[in-house]
Amino acid sequence: MLEYYGNPDKSRLPGLLERPTSGNEDVIRSVDEILSDVREHGDEALLRLAERFDGARPDSLFATPGEFAEAEALVSPSLRKAVDEACSNIRRFHEAQLPKGEVVETQEGVVCSRRIVPIGRVGLYVPSGTAPLFSTVLMLAIPASVARCRDIVLATPAKNGKVNPAILYAAKVAGVHRVLKVGGAQAIAAFAYGTESLSPRDKIFGPGNRYVSFAKLRVSSFVAIDMLAGPSEVMVVADRSSDPVFVAADLLSQAEHGNDSQVVLLIREDEAEAARIYSEVRGALSGLLEELPRADFMLRTLENSVAISYPSSEDILYAVNLYAPEHLIINTSDCDELLEGVENAGSVFLGPYSPESAGDYASGTNHTLPTSGWARSSSGVSTDSFIKKITVQKLTRKGAGLLAPTVMEMAAAESLYAHRKAMEVRTCR
Amino acid sequence: MLEYYGNPDKSRLPGLLERPTSGNEDVIRSVDEILSDVREHGDEALLRLAERFDGARPDSLFATPGEFAEAEALVSPSLRKAVDEACSNIRRFHEAQLPKGEVVETQEGVVCSRRIVPIGRVGLYVPSGTAPLFSTVLMLAIPASVARCRDIVLATPAKNGKVNPAILYAAKVAGVHRVLKVGGAQAIAAFAYGTESLSPRDKIFGPGNRYVSFAKLRVSSFVAIDMLAGPSEVMVVADRSSDPVFVAADLLSQAEHGNDSQVVLLIREDEAEAARIYSEVRGALSGLLEELPRADFMLRTLENSVAISYPSSEDILYAVNLYAPEHLIINTSDCDELLEGVENAGSVFLGPYSPESAGDYASGTNHTLPTSGWARSSSGVSTDSFIKKITVQKLTRKGAGLLAPTVMEMAAAESLYAHRKAMEVRTCR
Repeated sequence: MLEYYGNPDKSRLPGLLERPTSGNEDVIRSVDEILSDVREHGDEALLRLAERFDGARPDSLFATPGEFAEAEALVSPSLRKAVDEACSNIRRFHEAQLPKGEVVETQEGVVCSRRIVPIGRVGLYVPSGTAPLFSTVLMLAIPASVARCRDIVLATPAKNGKVNPAILYAAKVAGVHRVLKVGGAQAIAAFAYGTESLSPRDKIFGPGNRYVSFAKLRVSSFVAIDMLAGPSEVMVVADRSSDPVFVAADLLSQAEHGNDSQVVLLIREDEAEAARIYSEVRGALSGLLEELPRADFMLRTLENSVAISYPSSEDILYAVNLYAPEHLIINTSDCDELLEGVENAGSVFLGPYSPESAGDYASGTNHTLPTSGWARSSSGVSTDSFIKKITVQKLTRKGAGLLAPTVMEMAAAESLYAHRKAMEVRTCR
Repeated sequence: MLEYYGNPDKSRLPGLLERPTSGNEDVIRSVDEILSDVREHGDEALLRLAERFDGARPDSLFATPGEFAEAEALVSPSLRKAVDEACSNIRRFHEAQLPKGEVVETQEGVVCSRRIVPIGRVGLYVPSGTAPLFSTVLMLAIPASVARCRDIVLATPAKNGKVNPAILYAAKVAGVHRVLKVGGAQAIAAFAYGTESLSPRDKIFGPGNRYVSFAKLRVSSFVAIDMLAGPSEVMVVADRSSDPVFVAADLLSQAEHGNDSQVVLLIREDEAEAARIYSEVRGALSGLLEELPRADFMLRTLENSVAISYPSSEDILYAVNLYAPEHLIINTSDCDELLEGVENAGSVFLGPYSPESAGDYASGTNHTLPTSGWARSSSGVSTDSFIKKITVQKLTRKGAGLLAPTVMEMAAAESLYAHRKAMEVRTCR
């Protein structure tokens, strides 16, 4: 596990940092069948597929007030308190992200502005397989609610007819309007095509298994999606100041996400010191594995993982920006300085006291982040993801007169004479 | 042309507003061949394909300083002045869009922030077919330059070995770093895969014909693109206060974009008044068509177009938001009030003196806008399109201690025990 490479030639980095891949061929046919089934048969298909995949035909497609009340009673007071506190932090950070729009008089009588408008109908998908990801409910619904989306629908499977109580509770506190008790590719189909009881969504958000991801890819030619989510990944930057137990615990928390997730440790020290740190981290890993359930599972994940050292910050940052990690933990004495050189990352965790799990749940940042190197071009989900910015221009008569020569000259040079005419007629009336 | 429907039942609107579609099957094979050719043979394929499609094998793949100087001399002083003035307005508006990021202490000792970081390597595509779209150079390169992207490459075909001089001049003033003399799907392939002389791009921007659009769709599974651009479209809202010549000129400037573009006129009046306005607009159309070249071409486009009237603003706004037009001209006496109800549009042109051509060229807004109804979920290109927002969190030791109970409770409820451990170890050291 965690194979170590000291100061490797940079040309080797793309190979060392290659992400695990998995084929998708087997899911294509199944997803396509589900998509056309829901498209053709609507609600009836959703109920039939719920029975087939989730063990029961639900009494209603949407969670009822009674189900919400029942769920709240089933969630322990301590978990309710934790969800409420996480919600408050996440809401605070996402409210600060709401843009105000701009108004600029670019030249006399020409006023350009951007209007901030929420996306109307959004669909949020939250899986509920081995573990109910109620934290993801918060990460998607809070920004939607902060952006004031008009119609916020969350879909999640109802195993044997029941939605997980923590998911229903989180949906309520986060501002979800309706919970659709449907999971998998069929939920994505309902969002994309609409059914008798659900209008088509303007944008679809949320993680999921390969079926859900492939369904999102399929419908993305006609409906917006948040991102194509791949396996989760973390890069940890350490040096001699880092507590090896902290480093090991961070690596393990990524490892428990599954054996296609990836863990990379970067040590900024010369080879001798790096080798010493590496062996301390391995020791701490062994110690923690003894305390934790599912050690075998995490060990298998760590087989995909590597540790790499470079003595210089420059080379460490080169590796970071080449890999473009979803999560980047900078646990070094000069973390703020290193941050200045980070160009590609989803979310950064600075210093010894900022584990990834803080941001996964409750610090306030969003945990829906670009994977598979998409951090080179894309940001994670934020309040921005739930709004549009519509540009507006208004010219006065005088402004139109002053701008006309520029527009008319350019339109003629592009051989667009009706464009020129539309400006010209404004100058003579 | 411009068939008229007075006060139609709203259930008919989706049919009346249906966009023209065109098949793509014939381009698929050709684009796939070009993509693999460039992927396998790099620069050599680019030179060979330029010879095949653009009539000459260029001496160099990138425009030289000599070519820039020659181009500048070939552009008339009046066009240079117009480009400079447009550039200044566009730059002013896009500079105002640069976000500052936020810093929020969500709870004691927990600081969350967003860092604004430019996307590193961008590829901008600008077609140069019947007309050289040098205005698009400004619309893509200015925001890239305002965002401070490190490597801004523009690709455009060099017909018979020569790039259009206005495109080269615009590239220079707008801040392009290098101009790749390659067009079509092969330019998109070079951006996506990279070649010996060009590193792969992090994001690809720009309009193009069906080959270019399909190539962008193909590579979008692994490289970010700005949007899938469909045929251009305009919706004009008029009432008894609108000058019919202004309305007609605006409809025609959309019509000259080609026969798959779409033009919709909405008249907010009762049927009798609307019919009168409709006939005045038709009269103005006929008058203007006599003054303009390519009247036959525009007439054919107008065959796809409709005029629809409703007496109420509410119904007019329903039609606007259902259609989600790329361009929306609100040429009514109460345009500012109507704007408040606009939820779905790319860019809005307010009042009598704001033709679409003002924004196409020089008002300061961007003309790269969502088509085909994507305005329901998406914004046009802006400075935002060239930046990433990386979230950062930093917890103090005390902050970690205060947040730990929340994180640990939630992690355990999601059965993620290593996540809990990573927080727990921070509380005991």
